[in-house]
Amino acid sequence: MPNLFQFGDQIPWKKRKAELKEKQKQWKKAKIIKQLEKQKRQETAERAEQEESQSKKGRAFTVSVALPGSVLDNAQSPELRTYLAGQIARACVVFNVDEIVVFDEQGEDVKSVEGEFKGVGKKGHACIQLARILQYMECPQYLRKWFFPVHKDLQYAGLLNPLDSPHHMRIDEESEYREGRVLNKPPKQGKGSLVNCGMRKDVRIDKQLQPDLRVTVKLSKTQNQESRLYKGVVVAPHVPRTEGGLYWGYTVRLASCLSSVFTESPFKEGYDLTVGTSERGSSVDQATLSPFKHLLVVFGGLQGLEASLDADQNLDVTDPSDLFDLYLNTCPDQGSRTIRTEEAILISMAALRQKITAAFPDDSSSS
Amino acid sequence: MPNLFQFGDQIPWKKRKAELKEKQKQWKKAKIIKQLEKQKRQETAERAEQEESQSKKGRAFTVSVALPGSVLDNAQSPELRTYLAGQIARACVVFNVDEIVVFDEQGEDVKSVEGEFKGVGKKGHACIQLARILQYMECPQYLRKWFFPVHKDLQYAGLLNPLDSPHHMRIDEESEYREGRVLNKPPKQGKGSLVNCGMRKDVRIDKQLQPDLRVTVKLSKTQNQESRLYKGVVVAPHVPRTEGGLYWGYTVRLASCLSSVFTESPFKEGYDLTVGTSERGSSVDQATLSPFKHLLVVFGGLQGLEASLDADQNLDVTDPSDLFDLYLNTCPDQGSRTIRTEEAILISMAALRQKITAAFPDDSSSS
Ligand SMILES: C[S@@+](CC[C@H](N)C(=O)[O-])C[C@H]1O[C@@H](n2cnc3c(N)ncnc32)[C@H](O)[C@@H]1O
Ligand SMILES: C[S@@+](CC[C@H](N)C(=O)[O-])C[C@H]1O[C@@H](n2cnc3c(N)ncnc32)[C@H](O)[C@@H]1O
Repeated sequence: MPNLFQFGDQIPWKKRKAELKEKQKQWKKAKIIKQLEKQKRQETAERAEQEESQSKKGRAFTVSVALPGSVLDNAQSPELRTYLAGQIARACVVFNVDEIVVFDEQGEDVKSVEGEFKGVGKKGHACIQLARILQYMECPQYLRKWFFPVHKDLQYAGLLNPLDSPHHMRIDEESEYREGRVLNKPPKQGKGSLVNCGMRKDVRIDKQLQPDLRVTVKLSKTQNQESRLYKGVVVAPHVPRTEGGLYWGYTVRLASCLSSVFTESPFKEGYDLTVGTSERGSSVDQATLSPFKHLLVVFGGLQGLEASLDADQNLDVTDPSDLFDLYLNTCPDQGSRTIRTEEAILISMAALRQKITAAFPDDSSSS
Repeated sequence: MPNLFQFGDQIPWKKRKAELKEKQKQWKKAKIIKQLEKQKRQETAERAEQEESQSKKGRAFTVSVALPGSVLDNAQSPELRTYLAGQIARACVVFNVDEIVVFDEQGEDVKSVEGEFKGVGKKGHACIQLARILQYMECPQYLRKWFFPVHKDLQYAGLLNPLDSPHHMRIDEESEYREGRVLNKPPKQGKGSLVNCGMRKDVRIDKQLQPDLRVTVKLSKTQNQESRLYKGVVVAPHVPRTEGGLYWGYTVRLASCLSSVFTESPFKEGYDLTVGTSERGSSVDQATLSPFKHLLVVFGGLQGLEASLDADQNLDVTDPSDLFDLYLNTCPDQGSRTIRTEEAILISMAALRQKITAAFPDDSSSS
């Protein structure tokens, strides 16, 4: 059988060219599809990573708890007064509370709620003492001697049970973030300050900061083991929570009355979900929480939130339930006539924990 | 018009008799129907009353909590040791716990767990002290001086926060039931003993009982206000719960080891639902409780239930989860590395409360 295209024969060039062109077209198409597929894969991976760091790791929302400082006056000795403050701190830490607001329900004219908590008279002292003990406990042990000089309010601090929260690191513990204190050693030209983060070496940060400032440090992933120092950068205190998904302790705020708890929120947008607690509230079992950015849960003192309301001249409402999005009985059918505030925090937050989880169904960090 | 039956006329006696008979028959019938209706009404009322006292008022199930006495050794002073015992008592009362079992997890050879709690060595003293303080707190104030003579274990009892449970009645409070002590006054022939129930008058009961016995008294509905005494009958201690639907305090039991918690149950049938608690348990959020008669919830001490298990020579299991129907983490995502036992009781019972309610959907008493 003769070759179809013998040498010298007429080769059908036009046809071959067309065939080649078609092949090239196919190749190009395949290449583009492959590229698109790769791009898509990359995008998916990136999205997953992002999602992981945002939803799996980070926690965007915050939880605040408010209570009157007068609860301390319900203790029978200075030791038990201290212990009670410790119970409150621990209850809040167990439930990842980000802010504790101590409000004055005695209707005092509190002069200042800033800085060292000066300027408040003797009667208002329960608020100051509670706030001071809460701050003391929240501070990592290795920084306490710097930020908490000897003070009568802290006389029985030895009785406090430690918070054992994730930001209270032991000396050799590895962690992406650490709390530290800027050291009073003048940094070299062009170099950042030194920070004591409770580790065997100090940390050189990226900035020059004022000595004695408390800072949150993100340690560099790779460290030169030979170096005398660790390397790190200063981050906002919320970063361990929003990016790392870690519980990073609480801030403490003093409020001169119940209404200031709401109006002086540190969050620009304020609290977008507020819960009042009372045995006269509606049953927590039927309640659901809508998704929120900043949740506030408010507790009353010995006389309940009614008394806190009465003492507040800025508030015109008489029924505390009008003040909150939800007014909840978190312990229906209670076997004791009264539940103490420090008990109510554990009970209420335990009842709300599951509802908070349910409000963020896609957020695997809170499951 | 002439009279129909004029004198002397023939009166149709037969017909009249028949008519009368018929009338009587109708009357009888009506009477019977009325009687039947009355009977029916009564029955319905009785049934309703019964139903009310059984399903609406009474609570048939019980809840027991067990924990190692060694938790007291986790307190930093004798005062705080006492306070801690008080926290445990209050946590149990808030959640209507009917029995508290204090077990020895030190592997001591406990000689006796009876009566006055004698015969246990010094090392085991935490169990005895915890049990004693729990009993002291459960006892209504007006009976304490009789049942709790001065004792070193109770030296700091003044620091304890009262339970404020429904069976701790104030002097003039009205109640169907009261706890009392049989008085040492010889009752008259054919009359019952006198009981001090913490009211302005003593109560004459239906029986002659040994002096100094602690008894539960059901006071008669109608009392003669003129009389020097109230009238009542002695009932079993469970009656206020099973018939009145009231929470009536807890009993205290000592167990020489973890396994005795299960095997020495005061309930003939034992516990039919057992829950172990641990941060290593499965999430309480996914758990449901099946209906039960006698629920037992067990807590560990400083080292958790693993340590209690290790100390028990009667138990061959190594994984505590094998010991329980459910092994639950009642605080997923906890913000502190460890939750103390006294905190865990409040947290766990708060998480279980709603599940218990859900296990008895028809029982309006626990809603
Ligand atoms: C000692 S109680 C206040 C009792 C006060 N007599 C009253 O009637 O409100 C202190 C606080 O604990 C909280 N609390 C007590 N029982 C509660 C319950 N069943 N549900 C929710 N919160 C409760 C409330 O915040 C209350 O203001
Ligand atoms: C101090 S903790 C024991 C901690 C111990 N290191 C462990 O790993 O189990 C004391 C008890 O509190 C209870 N508990 C603590 N955290 C808990 C949690 N997340 N869920 C349920 N129970 C918990 C358990 O009964 C535990 O035995």
